[in-house]
Amino acid sequence: MNIIVDAMGGDNAPLQVVKGALDAALDYKNIDITLVGDENKIRDCSKELEMTIPDNISIVHTDVVVEMDDDPMVVMKEKSESSMAIGLKLLKDDKGDAFVSAGSTGALHTASTLIVRKIKGIRRSAIATILPFTPPILMLDAGANPVVTPDLLLQWAVVGSAYMKKVFGVKNPRVGLLNNGTEEHKGTPTACEAYAWLKEKVGINFVGNIESKEIPNSPCDVLVTDGFTGNITLKFAEGMGKFIGKNLTEIFKSNILTKLSYLFFFKKKIKKFKKRLDASEYGGAPLLGLSKPVIKAHGSSKAKEIKTAIRQAIEYSRSNIIEEVSREIK
Amino acid sequence: MNIIVDAMGGDNAPLQVVKGALDAALDYKNIDITLVGDENKIRDCSKELEMTIPDNISIVHTDVVVEMDDDPMVVMKEKSESSMAIGLKLLKDDKGDAFVSAGSTGALHTASTLIVRKIKGIRRSAIATILPFTPPILMLDAGANPVVTPDLLLQWAVVGSAYMKKVFGVKNPRVGLLNNGTEEHKGTPTACEAYAWLKEKVGINFVGNIESKEIPNSPCDVLVTDGFTGNITLKFAEGMGKFIGKNLTEIFKSNILTKLSYLFFFKKKIKKFKKRLDASEYGGAPLLGLSKPVIKAHGSSKAKEIKTAIRQAIEYSRSNIIEEVSREIK
Repeated sequence: MNIIVDAMGGDNAPLQVVKGALDAALDYKNIDITLVGDENKIRDCSKELEMTIPDNISIVHTDVVVEMDDDPMVVMKEKSESSMAIGLKLLKDDKGDAFVSAGSTGALHTASTLIVRKIKGIRRSAIATILPFTPPILMLDAGANPVVTPDLLLQWAVVGSAYMKKVFGVKNPRVGLLNNGTEEHKGTPTACEAYAWLKEKVGINFVGNIESKEIPNSPCDVLVTDGFTGNITLKFAEGMGKFIGKNLTEIFKSNILTKLSYLFFFKKKIKKFKKRLDASEYGGAPLLGLSKPVIKAHGSSKAKEIKTAIRQAIEYSRSNIIEEVSREIK
Repeated sequence: MNIIVDAMGGDNAPLQVVKGALDAALDYKNIDITLVGDENKIRDCSKELEMTIPDNISIVHTDVVVEMDDDPMVVMKEKSESSMAIGLKLLKDDKGDAFVSAGSTGALHTASTLIVRKIKGIRRSAIATILPFTPPILMLDAGANPVVTPDLLLQWAVVGSAYMKKVFGVKNPRVGLLNNGTEEHKGTPTACEAYAWLKEKVGINFVGNIESKEIPNSPCDVLVTDGFTGNITLKFAEGMGKFIGKNLTEIFKSNILTKLSYLFFFKKKIKKFKKRLDASEYGGAPLLGLSKPVIKAHGSSKAKEIKTAIRQAIEYSRSNIIEEVSREIK
């Protein structure tokens, strides 16, 4: 198995991406990694890290890089020779089994759709992100499709269920529809219609409308929604987490006594709780609905997160999700 | 000034509503209160509370009550003699200056629109809720209108600004548009178009798109959005707050040492932080866009919250928001 990695994508590229890939190549058995990016810079990174590039890592050179604020279409036009575009083309041409990038989400989604293409019958692919509650929830779409139709939500319920079954080992994933009330008639016309379709759909375990206040209690394993609401929900969780964290830190640091008791009694426990809520522990966000596995690692990924995303790409690739979904959608 | 109060609305009615009204009638100068509800029950409450009903409280009797799970339209049909419907009719007929109810939000919004009516030119009224950050943010719509058009968002920006100016004393309220990115072209076609309209609108202080992760930092004073996204954002804040609170309690209570240090060093500080995040400190949610002041108190309101909502109704009524908005919309 060969995992293609965009060495130049993300805030900490190429150093942290190269380190993550090197760590993965050492630790994971029977895999190859293709690093796409500036060969000189990649070799410089390996020197800086004092790690030699092992035989199971190959490099495909390009010095063109997609920037975080580039227009998504740039990958297809001016930057068709970028590490992101070349990586996706290698994937499309069966030169690898999965692609991992920490680069621009919009660019990766657009370029993946146009280069790798969707599963036949799937109208639009979605960004699926893990909400790190217990058990974790796969929410899709997390931002690629601000406006949706009921059939898209139904398709994402199918792909999301397959992913949670095969990659997370959830037996009969509970599918929920994010809505502004639990009753069947609630929400936008799209949500109402999606409810009716999801209820009738054989092969998925639809548990009804989910109110956002219930999300932290993990009322479902797969949560479908439009990319506008999904993105706002995802980012609000991030913002609320930071806000509460900051305020707690202030409370713990308010005087010498609180500081000491924090150090002795709470530090470990708070760290453990924070870690439990760290989405990056679960790897990146798969772009579901594509005909090949593409994983979007978080833009701020360090080596550890890149390595986790590579492991996730291996698992995704080993599963037969895409074949299963193809059959189901047909 | 006379504030009409739905004595039978809310989870803790009539006892807590009656207590809140009695407290308000004693403490706030130069006001009258009309309690609408079951006269016998109201008098029983005053006995139970060991408080006499003062001269500035009058009672309008009805024994019909709108239940929390009643269909919103029920107020207009089968329950047109309910405390909610009668209260709104009194308001419409100038028998009072504002109406406060802790009853069903959907029913109150529907009945207010049909009985009290909107400001001429306002297409739909919105539920405006306070997100209790520092400074507080008025978010509208919080759930009444799942689907919106750009002109509605623009109208709500105008009403919301007037409310924050007059009731919260914010000099030049910053208006933000909730969106899934800060760039002008981001979001749904509705959000894009609303951005263009808001940018051009004279008389409001539009500060652009607001990403949900920024909400806790109070990047604006008025946040406009559709009722679907608004409701999900509001309830997610509630859910995340509860979730983090529950986990912190577990950490603080994990052993005798953590319990003691909580008691001695943290209890006060944590309580203060929680209180700071308590939306009910700000009163209820005004239904903005109506031709008279209507305040929705939280369904679980106790006497204190009812009293705060009555104070808010007084302030809303004393301001000339409705006249100002009428002129602006014309």
